[in-house]
Amino acid sequence: MTARLDAQIAFLTEADRLKQVLRATTLADGSRRENSGEHSWHLALYALVLADHAGPGVNIDRVVKMLILHDLVEIDVGDVPIHSANGQAHGSAEVAEAEARAADRIFGLLPADIGTPLRALWEEFEAGRTPDALFARSLDRVQPVLQNIACGGGTWIEYDVTFEQLESRVGQKAARGAPALWDDIRRRARAFFDRT
Amino acid sequence: MTARLDAQIAFLTEADRLKQVLRATTLADGSRRENSGEHSWHLALYALVLADHAGPGVNIDRVVKMLILHDLVEIDVGDVPIHSANGQAHGSAEVAEAEARAADRIFGLLPADIGTPLRALWEEFEAGRTPDALFARSLDRVQPVLQNIACGGGTWIEYDVTFEQLESRVGQKAARGAPALWDDIRRRARAFFDRT
Repeated sequence: MTARLDAQIAFLTEADRLKQVLRATTLADGSRRENSGEHSWHLALYALVLADHAGPGVNIDRVVKMLILHDLVEIDVGDVPIHSANGQAHGSAEVAEAEARAADRIFGLLPADIGTPLRALWEEFEAGRTPDALFARSLDRVQPVLQNIACGGGTWIEYDVTFEQLESRVGQKAARGAPALWDDIRRRARAFFDRT
Repeated sequence: MTARLDAQIAFLTEADRLKQVLRATTLADGSRRENSGEHSWHLALYALVLADHAGPGVNIDRVVKMLILHDLVEIDVGDVPIHSANGQAHGSAEVAEAEARAADRIFGLLPADIGTPLRALWEEFEAGRTPDALFARSLDRVQPVLQNIACGGGTWIEYDVTFEQLESRVGQKAARGAPALWDDIRRRARAFFDRT
């Protein structure tokens, strides 16, 4: 068992580096930037708590797993913020290719019987076509909106974001996997922009 | 839906504070102390990657959920390290009572149909009697051991821990839910203590 466990431990120790990848978004109190490890935990909790907003056929256990895995490629590629000077890179083919190479390397650290299904879950999340992936991706869009409202503006202020930009950059994708949830959170964001 | 969503968001924003609860253990590279939010994420990943070490009847999806929830009470109570000047407090009745009050408050932020089953999962983890809880608790013991080996000693050096203390404080409980896994990791720890 030692060689197999060596590979499992190598992966888990490499994964630890995700705790050092910083996102643009801050903690809810604005005290520091959030890292992608704790962000992934927060999103898994979002899935457990907002499960009643999942569409028909969504399997929350699979959504939780996707969210745990979804940012691991950032160990190699870093986070590419939606609202930033480099915002146009978000979702670009270049970033997608770099992330695929990162997935090869990182999931490739595992024995294939473990790494292959985990990588497939990550690819399903990235492709964003199944009900599970669409709901997971909506939560990934919604959480930074709530963090920004909580901390008084966050990246919206830092990058001079308008409500219309939020709608086009975030809203459409958030709405796809959780339309009623986005509808309500959109109203909260609208009220925030109106106040500030 | 707004009042219900208010409660869900209040819980998720409160949960954000777990990212500011610091543990004794460091990141694998020793650069800083780990927080309980990112630790919970790392443990959920441990469950996905080390599922082949779970005993018969273990449901990994439930284990993952327990690990996501297991440290939320630390928002009120803080982390109580096993190896520390205050180590005897770990597992004490006083801490258990404080954690139960924290669970009342924190899970109580949620609508009861969501909060009650999540709190029940946390209680099952705390009681440590079911196969799912025993496996989850073993992972919670194993991860800091691997972090300490990775970073060159960590809390073992800081608190002058001997291999025998590691065995009595950590080994017995780690072995309960994952005996073969602990047997292998115990050998890795033994080799580390012999080298240093």
